[in-house]
Amino acid sequence: MRELDEYKVLVDQSLEEYFNGLGDGKLARAMAYSALLGGKRIRPVMALISAEMFGGSVEEAMPIAMAIEMIHTYSLIHDDLPAMDNDDLRRGKPTNHKVFGEAMAILAGDALLNEAHSLLIRSALKSGSRGAEAALVVSLAAGREGMVEGQVRDLENEGRAASFDELRGCHELKTGMLIAASLEAPAVLFGAGEDERKAMRDLGLKLGLAFQIKDDILDTTSTKEVLGKTPGKDETSGKTTYVSLFGLEKSEEMAKGLTGECLGILKGLDRDTAQLWEMCLALLQRNR
Amino acid sequence: MRELDEYKVLVDQSLEEYFNGLGDGKLARAMAYSALLGGKRIRPVMALISAEMFGGSVEEAMPIAMAIEMIHTYSLIHDDLPAMDNDDLRRGKPTNHKVFGEAMAILAGDALLNEAHSLLIRSALKSGSRGAEAALVVSLAAGREGMVEGQVRDLENEGRAASFDELRGCHELKTGMLIAASLEAPAVLFGAGEDERKAMRDLGLKLGLAFQIKDDILDTTSTKEVLGKTPGKDETSGKTTYVSLFGLEKSEEMAKGLTGECLGILKGLDRDTAQLWEMCLALLQRNR
Repeated sequence: MRELDEYKVLVDQSLEEYFNGLGDGKLARAMAYSALLGGKRIRPVMALISAEMFGGSVEEAMPIAMAIEMIHTYSLIHDDLPAMDNDDLRRGKPTNHKVFGEAMAILAGDALLNEAHSLLIRSALKSGSRGAEAALVVSLAAGREGMVEGQVRDLENEGRAASFDELRGCHELKTGMLIAASLEAPAVLFGAGEDERKAMRDLGLKLGLAFQIKDDILDTTSTKEVLGKTPGKDETSGKTTYVSLFGLEKSEEMAKGLTGECLGILKGLDRDTAQLWEMCLALLQRNR
Repeated sequence: MRELDEYKVLVDQSLEEYFNGLGDGKLARAMAYSALLGGKRIRPVMALISAEMFGGSVEEAMPIAMAIEMIHTYSLIHDDLPAMDNDDLRRGKPTNHKVFGEAMAILAGDALLNEAHSLLIRSALKSGSRGAEAALVVSLAAGREGMVEGQVRDLENEGRAASFDELRGCHELKTGMLIAASLEAPAVLFGAGEDERKAMRDLGLKLGLAFQIKDDILDTTSTKEVLGKTPGKDETSGKTTYVSLFGLEKSEEMAKGLTGECLGILKGLDRDTAQLWEMCLALLQRNR
């Protein structure tokens, strides 16, 4: 069995190879800058683990894994823009628009979203209808009824008091759907049935929520050095968070409760789920 | 044989139906606003004409046609942003960010690019590997080696003197590639061979250039009322255009020369190319 770190190394290698292969034009450099800024690579690692769980290989699943990470990266570039969250720091480094300017950052984000889909379509070309179905899972999770809509709601929640349901709905869309797609798309690619697909989707949504709650907690308790971005932003921007709604202790409890539900889903699967469980725990116990 | 206007009506109807079906959430409204702002629908109409030319139907080709128009629309929304061209008017109406704010305009653009690809992937799911190949043609034309790169070069050309080759390279990428894809993708979907694919690609690139030269001419000679956007922007922004490089008369000649080359390509095809030729002429003779 692979160590969790091994997947991350494989993802990092593939992304480096890919983006270094794009040459050193300005657009390629702006895309590569954010794509290779590091990060936990949670989504692609989950995609690779899911692939192996459903009998596929890392090699076959890598294009989907990379596509998902590119979508995540583009969303961060656009989120950080002055018109959106206006962040100067991301993973301890200047944000894309701070380095390349606002216009380039918009275009680098556009190009990454586009590139991700080109990869997904290539995967569909190679793997036939299962590949196309997997591609569709990712594309739908990223778009109008997924991540982008979550971002819209997130903007609307700024400076006003959101309810718990509004907050959860926003996070399911903004974070949960793409994590769910990371688990479901490889399952689809390697022939999982509808029950297993649904289990992976549910697992991803719960994990996404737990992840977001943990994010809110870290925004309150962590430091800029550990986090690699400015903490306390939620409070200064007047954003409703789990911590502002429920306090630290209750938020920790909620995250743990969700992790328990994740374990329940994994136990219900007739697959080797040890690595995915390890991954769930790693996400909850992280400090950045 | 259909009239050219008939294709445009079909495209408009399909887009209206599609976007009205997305509900009235804020994101859907922002997407629909720009997608339904009118416009000449050149790319989707060319896609439908190409589809019929290669033995396909309007119905089968419509998802690709709509996807291409959505990609065009997203690019206009992002182009108009304050950080890019900073335009207040588009097709005689306030630009997306003027109506919905800058953050929403960024997200509406993202969602349209994403939606276009979801449509392309659905088309690949339905039509097998030919559908996936057609989808890839569109996706590649829109991205890092196509339209987005053209946009990057366009930004770089602002306020400096570009050479003819730089200008042409920029326009081939920014305008030509997506027009070429409008012609090539349906050809691929309906089984055109490599020679015919190449002919459609070449035709699209030449047509795109002729179109851009005409755009530059109209920016000099037309009025805001006819154009639906502010004319004279190229000159005030210090952008190199065909008109600034060669003057009006020579630019007109170049556009006509390119149109002649387009006719040559069409004559070399063993297909009924009458409608496509009509379309080429309509593009060159337009006054807005």
